[in-house]
Amino acid sequence: MQNKTIKIHPINNLRNAVTPSHKMEEECGVFAMYDTKQIDNVAYAAYCGLFALQHRGQESAGITIANFGHLETIKGMGLVNEVFNVDELAHKMGNAAIGHVRYSTTGSSNLVNAQPLFAQSVMGAIALAHNGNLVNANQLRHELEMDGAIFQTSSDSEVILNLLAKRAKLGLEKAISDTCTTIRGAFALVMMIGNKLIAVRDPLGIRPLCLGKIRGTETHVLASESCALDIVGADLVRDIEPGELLIIDETGFKSFKYAPTNERASCSFEYIYFSRPDSILDGLDVYHVRESAGRYLAHQKPVEADVVVGVPDSGIVAAIGYSEESGIQYSMGLVRSKYMGRSFILPSQSLREQAVKLKLNPMRKVIAGKRVILVDDSLVRGTTAKKLIKLLREAGATEVHFRLASPMVKSECYFGVDISSKEELIASRMSVDEICREIGADSLDFLSISNQRKILGGEQFCEGCFTATYPIKDIENHQEDKC
Amino acid sequence: MQNKTIKIHPINNLRNAVTPSHKMEEECGVFAMYDTKQIDNVAYAAYCGLFALQHRGQESAGITIANFGHLETIKGMGLVNEVFNVDELAHKMGNAAIGHVRYSTTGSSNLVNAQPLFAQSVMGAIALAHNGNLVNANQLRHELEMDGAIFQTSSDSEVILNLLAKRAKLGLEKAISDTCTTIRGAFALVMMIGNKLIAVRDPLGIRPLCLGKIRGTETHVLASESCALDIVGADLVRDIEPGELLIIDETGFKSFKYAPTNERASCSFEYIYFSRPDSILDGLDVYHVRESAGRYLAHQKPVEADVVVGVPDSGIVAAIGYSEESGIQYSMGLVRSKYMGRSFILPSQSLREQAVKLKLNPMRKVIAGKRVILVDDSLVRGTTAKKLIKLLREAGATEVHFRLASPMVKSECYFGVDISSKEELIASRMSVDEICREIGADSLDFLSISNQRKILGGEQFCEGCFTATYPIKDIENHQEDKC
Amino acid sequence: MQNKTIKIHPINNLRNAVTPSHKMEEECGVFAMYDTKQIDNVAYAAYCGLFALQHRGQESAGITIANFGHLETIKGMGLVNEVFNVDELAHKMGNAAIGHVRYSTTGSSNLVNAQPLFAQSVMGAIALAHNGNLVNANQLRHELEMDGAIFQTSSDSEVILNLLAKRAKLGLEKAISDTCTTIRGAFALVMMIGNKLIAVRDPLGIRPLCLGKIRGTETHVLASESCALDIVGADLVRDIEPGELLIIDETGFKSFKYAPTNERASCSFEYIYFSRPDSILDGLDVYHVRESAGRYLAHQKPVEADVVVGVPDSGIVAAIGYSEESGIQYSMGLVRSKYMGRSFILPSQSLREQAVKLKLNPMRKVIAGKRVILVDDSLVRGTTAKKLIKLLREAGATEVHFRLASPMVKSECYFGVDISSKEELIASRMSVDEICREIGADSLDFLSISNQRKILGGEQFCEGCFTATYPIKDIENHQEDKC
Amino acid sequence: MQNKTIKIHPINNLRNAVTPSHKMEEECGVFAMYDTKQIDNVAYAAYCGLFALQHRGQESAGITIANFGHLETIKGMGLVNEVFNVDELAHKMGNAAIGHVRYSTTGSSNLVNAQPLFAQSVMGAIALAHNGNLVNANQLRHELEMDGAIFQTSSDSEVILNLLAKRAKLGLEKAISDTCTTIRGAFALVMMIGNKLIAVRDPLGIRPLCLGKIRGTETHVLASESCALDIVGADLVRDIEPGELLIIDETGFKSFKYAPTNERASCSFEYIYFSRPDSILDGLDVYHVRESAGRYLAHQKPVEADVVVGVPDSGIVAAIGYSEESGIQYSMGLVRSKYMGRSFILPSQSLREQAVKLKLNPMRKVIAGKRVILVDDSLVRGTTAKKLIKLLREAGATEVHFRLASPMVKSECYFGVDISSKEELIASRMSVDEICREIGADSLDFLSISNQRKILGGEQFCEGCFTATYPIKDIENHQEDKC
Repeated sequence: MQNKTIKIHPINNLRNAVTPSHKMEEECGVFAMYDTKQIDNVAYAAYCGLFALQHRGQESAGITIANFGHLETIKGMGLVNEVFNVDELAHKMGNAAIGHVRYSTTGSSNLVNAQPLFAQSVMGAIALAHNGNLVNANQLRHELEMDGAIFQTSSDSEVILNLLAKRAKLGLEKAISDTCTTIRGAFALVMMIGNKLIAVRDPLGIRPLCLGKIRGTETHVLASESCALDIVGADLVRDIEPGELLIIDETGFKSFKYAPTNERASCSFEYIYFSRPDSILDGLDVYHVRESAGRYLAHQKPVEADVVVGVPDSGIVAAIGYSEESGIQYSMGLVRSKYMGRSFILPSQSLREQAVKLKLNPMRKVIAGKRVILVDDSLVRGTTAKKLIKLLREAGATEVHFRLASPMVKSECYFGVDISSKEELIASRMSVDEICREIGADSLDFLSISNQRKILGGEQFCEGCFTATYPIKDIENHQEDKC
Repeated sequence: MQNKTIKIHPINNLRNAVTPSHKMEEECGVFAMYDTKQIDNVAYAAYCGLFALQHRGQESAGITIANFGHLETIKGMGLVNEVFNVDELAHKMGNAAIGHVRYSTTGSSNLVNAQPLFAQSVMGAIALAHNGNLVNANQLRHELEMDGAIFQTSSDSEVILNLLAKRAKLGLEKAISDTCTTIRGAFALVMMIGNKLIAVRDPLGIRPLCLGKIRGTETHVLASESCALDIVGADLVRDIEPGELLIIDETGFKSFKYAPTNERASCSFEYIYFSRPDSILDGLDVYHVRESAGRYLAHQKPVEADVVVGVPDSGIVAAIGYSEESGIQYSMGLVRSKYMGRSFILPSQSLREQAVKLKLNPMRKVIAGKRVILVDDSLVRGTTAKKLIKLLREAGATEVHFRLASPMVKSECYFGVDISSKEELIASRMSVDEICREIGADSLDFLSISNQRKILGGEQFCEGCFTATYPIKDIENHQEDKC
Repeated sequence: MQNKTIKIHPINNLRNAVTPSHKMEEECGVFAMYDTKQIDNVAYAAYCGLFALQHRGQESAGITIANFGHLETIKGMGLVNEVFNVDELAHKMGNAAIGHVRYSTTGSSNLVNAQPLFAQSVMGAIALAHNGNLVNANQLRHELEMDGAIFQTSSDSEVILNLLAKRAKLGLEKAISDTCTTIRGAFALVMMIGNKLIAVRDPLGIRPLCLGKIRGTETHVLASESCALDIVGADLVRDIEPGELLIIDETGFKSFKYAPTNERASCSFEYIYFSRPDSILDGLDVYHVRESAGRYLAHQKPVEADVVVGVPDSGIVAAIGYSEESGIQYSMGLVRSKYMGRSFILPSQSLREQAVKLKLNPMRKVIAGKRVILVDDSLVRGTTAKKLIKLLREAGATEVHFRLASPMVKSECYFGVDISSKEELIASRMSVDEICREIGADSLDFLSISNQRKILGGEQFCEGCFTATYPIKDIENHQEDKC
Repeated sequence: MQNKTIKIHPINNLRNAVTPSHKMEEECGVFAMYDTKQIDNVAYAAYCGLFALQHRGQESAGITIANFGHLETIKGMGLVNEVFNVDELAHKMGNAAIGHVRYSTTGSSNLVNAQPLFAQSVMGAIALAHNGNLVNANQLRHELEMDGAIFQTSSDSEVILNLLAKRAKLGLEKAISDTCTTIRGAFALVMMIGNKLIAVRDPLGIRPLCLGKIRGTETHVLASESCALDIVGADLVRDIEPGELLIIDETGFKSFKYAPTNERASCSFEYIYFSRPDSILDGLDVYHVRESAGRYLAHQKPVEADVVVGVPDSGIVAAIGYSEESGIQYSMGLVRSKYMGRSFILPSQSLREQAVKLKLNPMRKVIAGKRVILVDDSLVRGTTAKKLIKLLREAGATEVHFRLASPMVKSECYFGVDISSKEELIASRMSVDEICREIGADSLDFLSISNQRKILGGEQFCEGCFTATYPIKDIENHQEDKC
């Protein structure tokens, strides 16, 4: 059992209290790297890759360094640059690594759920990093428990580990493909099993996963988003296909489809909000999608105005697109504090009302006496929007027209996004006009579903949170801890 | 001596190694608040105010809470939200507070230099927060030492404390005004002496200091920048005048000029880089100054191009101005990582060359095949600019035209800005053409001094770092630790 | 899965480097408490109990608080008073708790091995705390892996969890008794399974486990040693019998023998060194055993001397016994530093030779010109003894006669004591005379096996480490991480 | 000002709450070392020396390393092995060092009061470490403040720094001797002033200070107690005389009396409780004094009994002496937990009554049915004694006769010992018989003053806390923070 050393790093106490998010939040990001020979920067590269994927999860981070089958895992609570000691990583020799970042939810934040998960099995040491969410985890878990399995975490990813172990005698490939047809839901997985690196994407390709290669080397890289390839100097080779199983080892690549892929249902919210604007997912440029959404909005419900303002950071690109298309001047009307970490907590007192100002301060000179078009990526609960519009009016805006670069978010996500309940979603309870009154805007518009389809270039996307029509049936009610 | 409790908070170990800055850096920010009655949010307000001034100093932070003459100081190394426990602050009763943030320099980072400084004197307990730098501190220090004074820190602010104590028998007002005519250089001071709040600005008004009042109350606020007034719900009343001494106590305001103010020499770099764009200093709007600089640049040396890109965050406003004036499209061509803290350290290996990508990733789709105008606020050493231009070319830019929204920085600052030596400044060694070649740009232009004067509206500004002509003579060679 | 919250507490960095032990070290201690109604001090009582058992393990500590089947676990690296926040514990309501302390070994110190271990199974939530070591864990582990089980820790206790889960369908009692006859070795277990508290002792009773009851209540307590009963105000009721399975739940007690108990083989080292002198194990008083050992030594090999000195703290009681019996004066000839924690590290330099003085300083006035009888509990590697004798001579001792209150330790322990290899043991390589020369004593004597048997009152004790004759056959070579 | 770097180490959060002491507590310990050439272990030696003096102060620790006049100070809150990184110290080159440990009081625990204090003065850099307490500090402070001095700490040691600076123009020797005749009270000082090491003892020699020399070298060492010489391999040369000023520099030793020394008033409590038993102070062996006290007690008030028990650790030596003299058997009747740190806090609940058991557990077998003589060093508040006697009776003691190895403590100490008020002292309010009833003993006896004088060998000791007759007159009422 000398394959495993988990080192626990101190939790930053300042991080205990988390301001509730006003955004839908991604659950995880994964990264992997493989070389046929021992190299000295595989752990540091994983660090850089996770750093580029930090926006996909800030609760915990972990790296498993593989040295020809010997697996060592370092993980902890906190941001990538808090969990890891770079100097220590830079001295780790190995030929492969996988990494994971996980999103912070208040309730179940704990280290045992941090990934990569580790297990010793008859196939050898396994390390697994998972982005997504299973929709039949409870049933599978119950079956496994009935068969004598034990569960030490609350993560649905542990179900995958147990299924793999159960099927071990079928051989590696069959064990994995059987497991991947048994589980249902969203999963982009990277795993080390002994000295093999495995990558899997669910049959609908709900969560992204792409393959790259470091320029001038034989080192392959896998990541949730292409921005993590850029950071390690890798070129984007292609996306892992829905239903694809890829095995990389010393003998080379082996790829096959473990599931038929007539359909495809990539998450549309990856383009709207989750992914970084400099990523390319399944061939689509995130920046371009957002800018186009702004352009379409300019035509959907035109309004006379003096200035276009984006909500930093997620509404900036769409605001630029809106400005370009409408000819109305783009200005930085809201200044975002660089120092607003997740640790910022507000005691209960009169100053709390001014809380949103700690994050965003309106530029009085840009706003005063102006008719403002305010652009954001999406509307979830509406509480921050209401405060922002009030702030703009206090700063002298004569009109505030609010535009959202995505359709109305009306329903839960079962595939790895944190929306605790449908009731939270303002668009599930109110019409556009009602929302407009509630948040105090002069006018309000959402990108239409049809325009979103035009921008994305088709209907092969999951629109569940907008339409409540999901690409997978038979979704369990009670959900495990997602990743 | 029960007036003083300094609590030392743990230093974040992750902060030990600091990436050398590629910018000129401000040294400090100050904040103060005064009410005639005890209120429950004076400490929390100081916290919010320092949070808004965090960009002026990230090394240490401190707050002195005054409860009718009883002074308690909490200070530590780190960011505002690391040093203070908000819950603890929210329960501190008091009628006044002063606060300070200090810039991080590698060499002399230590807690004894953190402010507010405290001293027990015959006038009572004194707490002092200082932004600026004295140019005759060594001489004064020597004189004080010859007279039996001891110095426990390396800060020039301790000289001020000693001078005040020496003059105590003259009475408070005379002691302060005498002290302020004895010291020379840049100083914006806030002090508690017993239950009096004192604010002073140097005779040339080099460092900013403004006065506000919380709406609907009699609570007065002082801050280095007006953005800190906004955050606590205060309206900007006016700026403290050069040479003004303001005393606030239970009996009201008292203000007088301790020095003649025929001249004025506000730091021009406050507008170019240091201050937040949402601040108004001495009546001038920072956002407007930066946008105007971009507009002037568009005329100074016009060039045909496809896209204007600002270097995040400091070049964005000027880039927007440039785009507006030139009609060339503004795009977000560089994506800045939100998670790049000061703690990011890079081990010495081949991946280091890709380091700047950890902070800034070029948007290939925005850049590729385009002629790019890249706008930044200023050029100091030139090393980052060179890497950025290389990155843009690798991302497919066909031309890169670099524009700086300030004149060439050629000389040291003696008034509170960290430029360790003139030799570091690329513009002190090279001509525009040489710099252009060195950094690999297709063309290069700096805002002219004359255009900068037009934008700022006159010559009453310190231009020492551009012209080597300083508004104060007889500057000591060897410098104390500045603030 | 809301049954589990593991909170990870910061690791004290000062603890990283551990001075290698010069003693045989116990691996673990367990504690449990059960009441039929909810009480407010069950967690705090567990804390006190573990505090009293701290000498049995200083690496990690954990408590599972049970509130009628809802299990919450808090565990971390470090001492009991470092891992737990007493204020937090004091507010935990519950009706039962189990706790565990674990010994620190340099190699495998990590949080995943900290106990209580937790698992969700078809029987419900299980929390397990184990003192002892299995001798067939590898084989069982292999069989379980072949059957699809996964292992997430390197602890042999995880094997027990998996065996229990496999047998769950047999019903609780049968599952446990089957498991306890499948595993072989030393085990004193306390477990919560749902709302039942289970206590088990291995068929030979190698590791101790006793039952107590808090005076004036119906609250039952289980602990590795009776000193942990004292601390919570409980009276010692009886010891758990070898091969006994005890189940406590709301309906009362149920106890039966899952294994025949014709034999018994309590660890003799518990009396010699591991247990606290104020504990009573299996009816035998530890203090009395040690004092008697000293008395027997006084007769075994009498020597003329001036003073009897015990090595603090483990040799003190035997030294007092020796003094009483011999009539030679007992003196505190060695002063032990109270502040020598496990964190004390010594850099490689000339001062290192004086290292043992940091821990023990000889009393020159007591020693100088005297013939000293030095008494310790046992001799493991001999290195510290050699240094101590040298120190005494430097302090002026004219003769040093070394006496050990246990027989020669010549062989490994397979039942939960940390002796990494037989080669380390000086008595496995040398005769008494050779050791005497090696450590520089004037004479040397070990308690004879026959005298030890007289003191312990029979042969029903494990003497494996003295005689290499073990009470269990078929011991696996390669050992899992023990507890 | 590059002479000073204070590094602040994290405070151990576990240390926040301190159990109130049941003992009189020493305030500080000092250590110093000087060599004429640069050596590599001066900082590590200071670390070892402070480690040996840890019992004199556990709040903070500090070391100033001197490298031919360049002074660097490292200090922090906590124990010696928490504040310092030994690896870091082991690489510090220097020719001298001074160190300090400070006692923990709840109220004024803060880093600014940690020593060595540092000051830059016209004489050069000064570092000062002080054990003792001035009795005219307030008056001197007021005079200095009137003269323009400022005070940044609440320590009376800062008064000494200011006095020295004021007198700097008189030359080093005169400045020091003038200062030492101006201050009144108890002071054992070690200082670095530039490259000179200075040691001073107050005119009555109230606090101890001894001089040693490392065997085979020219390295001189100064320490509060000789046990700190032992640990660094130094031989005790002599004690610094009352009123002596010693200056060590590259040219050698210079020693003179700055004050006449007809009198002497060494603190008697150093022998009774403060100092380690292995120290020799002013020629008197601490162990011997304590053992003799036990012997005298055996004669003062003889009683028939079965066993003599010492209260660990401070009553053990006297108990051994009592046993030897009386012929009554000595036994370890109370077991002290090794793990009871200062961090142990007890929540307010029913279990609190059993609190003293966490620290001390009675040995039932030793105590039950026995008449016990319980020996402790001194009686302060009586609360712990009462609990201990109750514990012994619960463990079956038929009689408990309590003996104290010092006279009745009836009055405050003004010379560096922490007794907050006379009212706390049980012997200031009650007669021996009343105390005996109050604590529930069968008989009670204190060492008589006359016997104590016999043991100490004269009347040249301060007995203020026993007799309220102090060797210094005109003691200020309000006390500064002592050290």
